[in-house]
Amino acid sequence: MEMMKCVIKETAGEGGIVLAERPVPETGDFDILIRVKATAICGTDVHIKHWAEYAQKRIKPPTIMGHEYVGEVVKTGKNVTSVKVGDIVNSDSHLVCGTCDLCLNGHNNVCYNTLTIGVTRDGSFAEYISIPEKAAVLCDPKMPIEQLALMEPLGVAVHCAMEFPVAAKKVVVCGCGPIGCMGVAVARILGAAQIIAIEINEKRAQMALDMGADSVVNPAKENVVEKVRELSGGLGADVVLDFSGNAGAVAAALEYVKPEGCISAAGVGQGPLNLPYEYFITKGVTLKGIAGREIPRTWERMKGLFAAGLDISPVITHILPLEEYEKGLDLMEKGQCGKVILKP
Amino acid sequence: MEMMKCVIKETAGEGGIVLAERPVPETGDFDILIRVKATAICGTDVHIKHWAEYAQKRIKPPTIMGHEYVGEVVKTGKNVTSVKVGDIVNSDSHLVCGTCDLCLNGHNNVCYNTLTIGVTRDGSFAEYISIPEKAAVLCDPKMPIEQLALMEPLGVAVHCAMEFPVAAKKVVVCGCGPIGCMGVAVARILGAAQIIAIEINEKRAQMALDMGADSVVNPAKENVVEKVRELSGGLGADVVLDFSGNAGAVAAALEYVKPEGCISAAGVGQGPLNLPYEYFITKGVTLKGIAGREIPRTWERMKGLFAAGLDISPVITHILPLEEYEKGLDLMEKGQCGKVILKP
Amino acid sequence: MEMMKCVIKETAGEGGIVLAERPVPETGDFDILIRVKATAICGTDVHIKHWAEYAQKRIKPPTIMGHEYVGEVVKTGKNVTSVKVGDIVNSDSHLVCGTCDLCLNGHNNVCYNTLTIGVTRDGSFAEYISIPEKAAVLCDPKMPIEQLALMEPLGVAVHCAMEFPVAAKKVVVCGCGPIGCMGVAVARILGAAQIIAIEINEKRAQMALDMGADSVVNPAKENVVEKVRELSGGLGADVVLDFSGNAGAVAAALEYVKPEGCISAAGVGQGPLNLPYEYFITKGVTLKGIAGREIPRTWERMKGLFAAGLDISPVITHILPLEEYEKGLDLMEKGQCGKVILKP
Amino acid sequence: MEMMKCVIKETAGEGGIVLAERPVPETGDFDILIRVKATAICGTDVHIKHWAEYAQKRIKPPTIMGHEYVGEVVKTGKNVTSVKVGDIVNSDSHLVCGTCDLCLNGHNNVCYNTLTIGVTRDGSFAEYISIPEKAAVLCDPKMPIEQLALMEPLGVAVHCAMEFPVAAKKVVVCGCGPIGCMGVAVARILGAAQIIAIEINEKRAQMALDMGADSVVNPAKENVVEKVRELSGGLGADVVLDFSGNAGAVAAALEYVKPEGCISAAGVGQGPLNLPYEYFITKGVTLKGIAGREIPRTWERMKGLFAAGLDISPVITHILPLEEYEKGLDLMEKGQCGKVILKP
Repeated sequence: MEMMKCVIKETAGEGGIVLAERPVPETGDFDILIRVKATAICGTDVHIKHWAEYAQKRIKPPTIMGHEYVGEVVKTGKNVTSVKVGDIVNSDSHLVCGTCDLCLNGHNNVCYNTLTIGVTRDGSFAEYISIPEKAAVLCDPKMPIEQLALMEPLGVAVHCAMEFPVAAKKVVVCGCGPIGCMGVAVARILGAAQIIAIEINEKRAQMALDMGADSVVNPAKENVVEKVRELSGGLGADVVLDFSGNAGAVAAALEYVKPEGCISAAGVGQGPLNLPYEYFITKGVTLKGIAGREIPRTWERMKGLFAAGLDISPVITHILPLEEYEKGLDLMEKGQCGKVILKP
Repeated sequence: MEMMKCVIKETAGEGGIVLAERPVPETGDFDILIRVKATAICGTDVHIKHWAEYAQKRIKPPTIMGHEYVGEVVKTGKNVTSVKVGDIVNSDSHLVCGTCDLCLNGHNNVCYNTLTIGVTRDGSFAEYISIPEKAAVLCDPKMPIEQLALMEPLGVAVHCAMEFPVAAKKVVVCGCGPIGCMGVAVARILGAAQIIAIEINEKRAQMALDMGADSVVNPAKENVVEKVRELSGGLGADVVLDFSGNAGAVAAALEYVKPEGCISAAGVGQGPLNLPYEYFITKGVTLKGIAGREIPRTWERMKGLFAAGLDISPVITHILPLEEYEKGLDLMEKGQCGKVILKP
Repeated sequence: MEMMKCVIKETAGEGGIVLAERPVPETGDFDILIRVKATAICGTDVHIKHWAEYAQKRIKPPTIMGHEYVGEVVKTGKNVTSVKVGDIVNSDSHLVCGTCDLCLNGHNNVCYNTLTIGVTRDGSFAEYISIPEKAAVLCDPKMPIEQLALMEPLGVAVHCAMEFPVAAKKVVVCGCGPIGCMGVAVARILGAAQIIAIEINEKRAQMALDMGADSVVNPAKENVVEKVRELSGGLGADVVLDFSGNAGAVAAALEYVKPEGCISAAGVGQGPLNLPYEYFITKGVTLKGIAGREIPRTWERMKGLFAAGLDISPVITHILPLEEYEKGLDLMEKGQCGKVILKP
Repeated sequence: MEMMKCVIKETAGEGGIVLAERPVPETGDFDILIRVKATAICGTDVHIKHWAEYAQKRIKPPTIMGHEYVGEVVKTGKNVTSVKVGDIVNSDSHLVCGTCDLCLNGHNNVCYNTLTIGVTRDGSFAEYISIPEKAAVLCDPKMPIEQLALMEPLGVAVHCAMEFPVAAKKVVVCGCGPIGCMGVAVARILGAAQIIAIEINEKRAQMALDMGADSVVNPAKENVVEKVRELSGGLGADVVLDFSGNAGAVAAALEYVKPEGCISAAGVGQGPLNLPYEYFITKGVTLKGIAGREIPRTWERMKGLFAAGLDISPVITHILPLEEYEKGLDLMEKGQCGKVILKP
């Protein structure tokens, strides 16, 4: 039995993440085997390390971690027809059933029977990963492998930014971590008339400008509502993309968004979201929660936007060998980085 | 100078509503003069009577009240081309500017420069009303005049029910006062697969059934979330139309609506709207505030739905002469009625 | 090996359709076996009988015919999870790949790798049919089995009628064979303001009226363009649903449809479609070809419309035992029927 | 009475275009007076010169020509509120009624009662033009005046390119005269994945590349259908924007567009448009005629796209004083130019 190295959450509770040897996964008749070329660390991986409630509810150790990745197909099951050895592929982290009421109605991003790579089944912090053929997304082999490894989080930005039309519109992007910065780049390539970013952290603010924001507002120093109104010519924003997950930021967005404006909210906040009821209704606002990615729609859109020239490389700040996963998790935890790529 | 009788809010403060004689309004070059055939009492008129904050902010007495109406054109200004004497017309209660940023972007329902009939300018509790030609909506003269008088509130129901597709979908209508009951009828005629009404008041619950609801849930007696799930085959609702303006009802709707489901909320609530943040985002829900009517789109839709067979007559419980406006306001205040029509 | 009776196209060329005994199909790990309860004859089956070009290009005899059906699940493969023995199911006639560019972009109705039941693989004129689990559509067991057997052709009517909004709109349905009549019923349940049917055959004209048309125009006796304009109050139709496949009918539709109106054309015509170029562009018309059904969207919509009260039973004129397939094909060929159901 | 110079079509028949002195137009209570800063020559103006059928049907000489323009407000009628002296404004060439069935249903681009500037009422080849306040479009005074003068034809490109989503899609732009080249630039700024231009004229082909096309196919030298398929990776185009008005080009587009693809056709062709009927339907194609611009939607979109960075200056090849209108018309007729701007 061929073995591979991988990073596993070995035990429940704080920590317990180790580099290990495991058998290369089996490849069923409808599956493909992928040699991982690059895989990225997500904030969720830090939560897994600290055994947050999210992890406690879902993970049954030992589990190979990692759910943002790209690789090369090295083996295909006998019934596989649409993918061949040598193809560069990745996939959503969600493996969906395709038969539940939500999948049938076009909402597989919230499929009732989702399996999550690196969480509820083995993941991509490994030399190899096996996935069903139907989950595979064929990538352009000419694209840089590091950007392809980031399509899962990029998909959240694309899902959020394409929920409402931003072309020719005034857009606010709230929260400029890596996904928010990708949101800026996506809004730019879609023809937004103006992009105002909102971010406290100065490094992130600069990254937002580098990725195409027209201006950045620092809520620690400025009155966000007044500043957005001023920058938008007095009228406010047509569309707000929230990646902050901050209830106060959403409340402020409700103020500076135009009547009948739209708030597309991908940031997952904790606790209550408190909105002024009468104001919300009479202003005619739309508030939409953004969960995951639509499969394959969001992925096809990402491929098209890469072809259109989308470049998310500025968010990549570190590329490490898989063995240095601990350093990567530390960087993420301290927030002193953009995205960290691991190479097995 | 020809005089007419009308009902006016004569003085600021509680009460002060009197039957009066006033000159028939002048008809400018771009205006039409309408002899009012039927006008309906709105909950807002009760708020005006009691000089609620809404009224204090907007009304400068004396003002002729009334903003739901229909009548016959009796005179047209010299530049009027699209309306002629004898036409049956009504209008939105909102007279919009057509030139502000919101009007230019298709959102005249929240026009920055709205004048409101019966509130910020004279209204329809009168023998005659004058409006600009461009505000006039031509009605089918074969339709019962009483239903035509209700197109303004019906417009809220149509705006709310057509915000998201309800055809072939499972729909909950929350709050079955007159507008909620109209919402039931509209969802029915649009081909909703199932309509579950939610209402405490037993008379209103019966009216909802009469207007096409498949079932009614009484939140005072039943667990709404469980009951809606059960009635919908375990999966919950695709679309919720809220006319209750009740924050608890919206919170419950967030529970029983499907992931990626839509809540179209026309009920204007007071105080905070408190939603569980993480749940809202990860469920992918859309929450939309419904303000007023889109002009002329909602009105054209109403005309088409009347032609399709929409019948809202069950919500009309009282028809009174204009002089009995006090009785009408009392009926409304006690909630022992559907819609009350006044005939000048 | 268990045997079953079935109707097969045994040989290439004219005729060659026989009642036969064949082994009950095998059920793979991802498949389900269905005992056919009702199956319907399509015009295509008549073309197969006469070995039309359509058949010559696609069929490799011997092939079990039949692609409109419903049945009960009697066996499930070991990997099947979403369907169980006893379920009432049917399926699209198209088995799609799910991985080609068209499937990935939401257009599986034109999947490049479609297999067609009863044409390019064995069909439903049989006691049993086996299909992949993922193709199965769960039906409401309380629905009449005969109507469930017609969901494949009904899907064309639903796809055509839901391509453009018909609620509150003036709609023309052109060509009132069984699918056109279903189109009338669908437009009605979706809240069309007015439905004008166009049909030469008097029986079909009556059926269109029975299924909800407001009026029928006979193009052999009346000027269709003038008559539609007159019936629609001088303005013409908002939406035209064409099931005639007649180039002259589409040219007439272009005349009587409003500027910026929509023609949703499901009728497959032969030869050239000749349109006046300048008129088409400056009138701003949309012409959309309707191919097959969107899977599963159209099927979910059909289930919802049945729940809403859609009744297509008037189009069913004959129910025969499977053995009388020849009589059924004859009836279809002579056009003296609506839909003919066979019961194995 | 103040006089101004202007270019008028003085007499019916060929030619008859002269420089003249006319009174500055009157400004009604709801009108604004604009000092024209730049006005552009349209192909229609050449047709007017030659008294083409289009002109014969519409023009009653003498008429001041010109319908593409921008200027500065120098006077406002007493009821004007949304525009003030000093504002930079332009307008659609179509003055619409706002009350006909088409206007009421959101289709004022085909308003039944359209007045056309420079055709059915006096135009912009003049020092001054007067228009109703409601027709005025406020422009960004920081934009180059020459580009603002081209918003009317740009509006056709924007209307055509925004009819179907082009973001992340493969787009063909067919016919690269000035409006087609603008269509290329618009598709680019909206995030098209790939833009293939089709054009015979080599200068225009180069201009299309300059404005953002990825490649140009010359139908005189290459097989367009094969070449588009090859350039698009074998699959064909998602969306075709036709500005050629050539029936053969549309027929070719039907070949190289993907199944379920969309053809947005703004080019106004003569004679018949001949399409293969069965192929059109079974391929599921959408063909949409693009007429004029939606007011104000298309105009708001143009303003937003200018803010996003849209630059159409490459199509401007000549800037002449108004007096040299004959030279301008000659240039247009010979097709040896992009757009020609006249400055009064």
